[in-house]
Amino acid sequence: MRHAPLNTRADAAAVPGGTVADLGERDLIARIQERLPPASRALLVGIGDDAAVLEPPRGRLEVLTTDGLVEGIHFDRRFSTPFDIGWKALAVNLSDIAAMGAAPAAALLSLALPESMGIDALDGLIDGFLSLAGESRVGLAGGNVTRSPGPLVVDVTVTGSVRRRDVLRRNGARPGDGVFVTGSIGAARAGLEFLMAGGSEISLDGMDACIERYCRPAPRYRIGALLGRVRAATACMDLSDGLADAARQVAEASGVGIRLTADALPVSEACRRWFDERGGDAIAAAAAGGDDYELLFTVPRKRTGRLRHVVQQARNVPITRIGEITAEKGAELIRNGSREPLPAGFVHF
Amino acid sequence: MRHAPLNTRADAAAVPGGTVADLGERDLIARIQERLPPASRALLVGIGDDAAVLEPPRGRLEVLTTDGLVEGIHFDRRFSTPFDIGWKALAVNLSDIAAMGAAPAAALLSLALPESMGIDALDGLIDGFLSLAGESRVGLAGGNVTRSPGPLVVDVTVTGSVRRRDVLRRNGARPGDGVFVTGSIGAARAGLEFLMAGGSEISLDGMDACIERYCRPAPRYRIGALLGRVRAATACMDLSDGLADAARQVAEASGVGIRLTADALPVSEACRRWFDERGGDAIAAAAAGGDDYELLFTVPRKRTGRLRHVVQQARNVPITRIGEITAEKGAELIRNGSREPLPAGFVHF
Repeated sequence: MRHAPLNTRADAAAVPGGTVADLGERDLIARIQERLPPASRALLVGIGDDAAVLEPPRGRLEVLTTDGLVEGIHFDRRFSTPFDIGWKALAVNLSDIAAMGAAPAAALLSLALPESMGIDALDGLIDGFLSLAGESRVGLAGGNVTRSPGPLVVDVTVTGSVRRRDVLRRNGARPGDGVFVTGSIGAARAGLEFLMAGGSEISLDGMDACIERYCRPAPRYRIGALLGRVRAATACMDLSDGLADAARQVAEASGVGIRLTADALPVSEACRRWFDERGGDAIAAAAAGGDDYELLFTVPRKRTGRLRHVVQQARNVPITRIGEITAEKGAELIRNGSREPLPAGFVHF
Repeated sequence: MRHAPLNTRADAAAVPGGTVADLGERDLIARIQERLPPASRALLVGIGDDAAVLEPPRGRLEVLTTDGLVEGIHFDRRFSTPFDIGWKALAVNLSDIAAMGAAPAAALLSLALPESMGIDALDGLIDGFLSLAGESRVGLAGGNVTRSPGPLVVDVTVTGSVRRRDVLRRNGARPGDGVFVTGSIGAARAGLEFLMAGGSEISLDGMDACIERYCRPAPRYRIGALLGRVRAATACMDLSDGLADAARQVAEASGVGIRLTADALPVSEACRRWFDERGGDAIAAAAAGGDDYELLFTVPRKRTGRLRHVVQQARNVPITRIGEITAEKGAELIRNGSREPLPAGFVHF
């Protein structure tokens, strides 16, 4: 239902413009290089040598993460365009860098390409990756291209930097801290369920935005770096495995409890409608659903002024107080005046 | 013919000790963490947060590379044990870091695991990775574990550091420079051909070492860092795609020519015998064959003293002069007094 799907082995012969099997490794790399914007001054050696060489910003720590998307596990080419896949492969890594309070700087892109993949699809994937890279000012420093006898695999590594005192870990939450979340939750899950239900036959207001959230998430790299820079938060984590999972992990790592308020959760309107119409529990689904690349973080009362600064700078991204850290351990949800355990998190493996 | 192969989907039910599908993502990560040695002081945040945090060595540039092994493309589990696969996935990256004149520091490991893979096989893979990591003093800083609906994919990123003036690129070779290579060439190719020919029925002296070179290459991380540190070389590249390919690439990047002497090439004895017995051209095969994780580098005459220091420190690894850089462009081999073009390189894609 979206344009330019990857091509399966079966229809390889019909791919206009040819497949990646028509190109050698060097041609493939040249094709990627052609699409690159001018490199930043910090990138001293880019694609084309044995390894990349970067000038680290002085007096800062390095933050390093890697995450990958595997066809059939993390995406389905019936639902995601090549552009989406390239975009999302970088997005999930930027989200991890943001969750450390760091600013991203450079990325490596490692591709395992099925022979039957069209060259157009490869171009689309690179364009999606570079589109988000441009927006977030991340340079493509290097990578690797190989064949895959099975699924398309896109592995990305992102390096960033942070001042020593600005690092946001998961283990700094203290009783009394407020718990906050960026943006809204549940939209990606609703979007995916809609697509899997054969979405095109159903019409539901606002569902386009849910699909967009699933296919092309907007990682909070600006807010993450800002949270670090102004030192507003005591702990931070991204919601890649869902809000409930993040809340539980921050509480466990910090040796505290966490209590969220159901009414306060910023569940997207279309998501609420999707689950309500199916007789599902929208709150539980939104809290458990993965693929929300938002940030959960904790702020002590005395840093409210700093938080206000972040809220002002966050532009169109709302920041919502959803609960608080407690001395009593455990992770619970207050709903209609009674307590219930937070739903289980999303399991990726 | 080697122990503990990975298990295919078909025999998953018969895997003693269970398969990775029996473990969740968190259990898998915990299993890897258990095997880790104590972290170095430079690793401030390791596995278990959103991203790793490292303290970069002061005043040095960062060198960053990524390379992956895909089952069915880069390895065959009939020939390589899980230990071999883990070892080699790190080795190919250490070779790239060495080729820049840099010292490796930390690695990220990204795994896409078939559900049918045995837990024992995963343990073996991690042990192989950590064995070389320990030997080369590289810390495992983080990574990613996911399922694969197809082949096993092992992607590794390695970060290292180098002083600005020590960076070894491909483009610094000048006419008159001597061309040198570490170790020997051709053994990995002979080992692979032997295995593919159903090796166990053939007995050939020295073939064990060839198989070892193919399955568990010894990257030249000490010599690479030393070449950088003493500034002996003007250009350097690793032989992952074969000697002929490296020679051609260094010449092209430097805008010069390269002339190698057939008699001088350190072709491994077992490799020579393997090709001689088959009526093949051992010299051409050894020069074209990939998977030799040796270094090719160029040294001007006036830096011979520095090179001598490297040779002394290289312990049991020979360093051989195999030719020279010429003003006249092109890449050729002098054999029996006549010139011939260097064979084409090994094509990975």
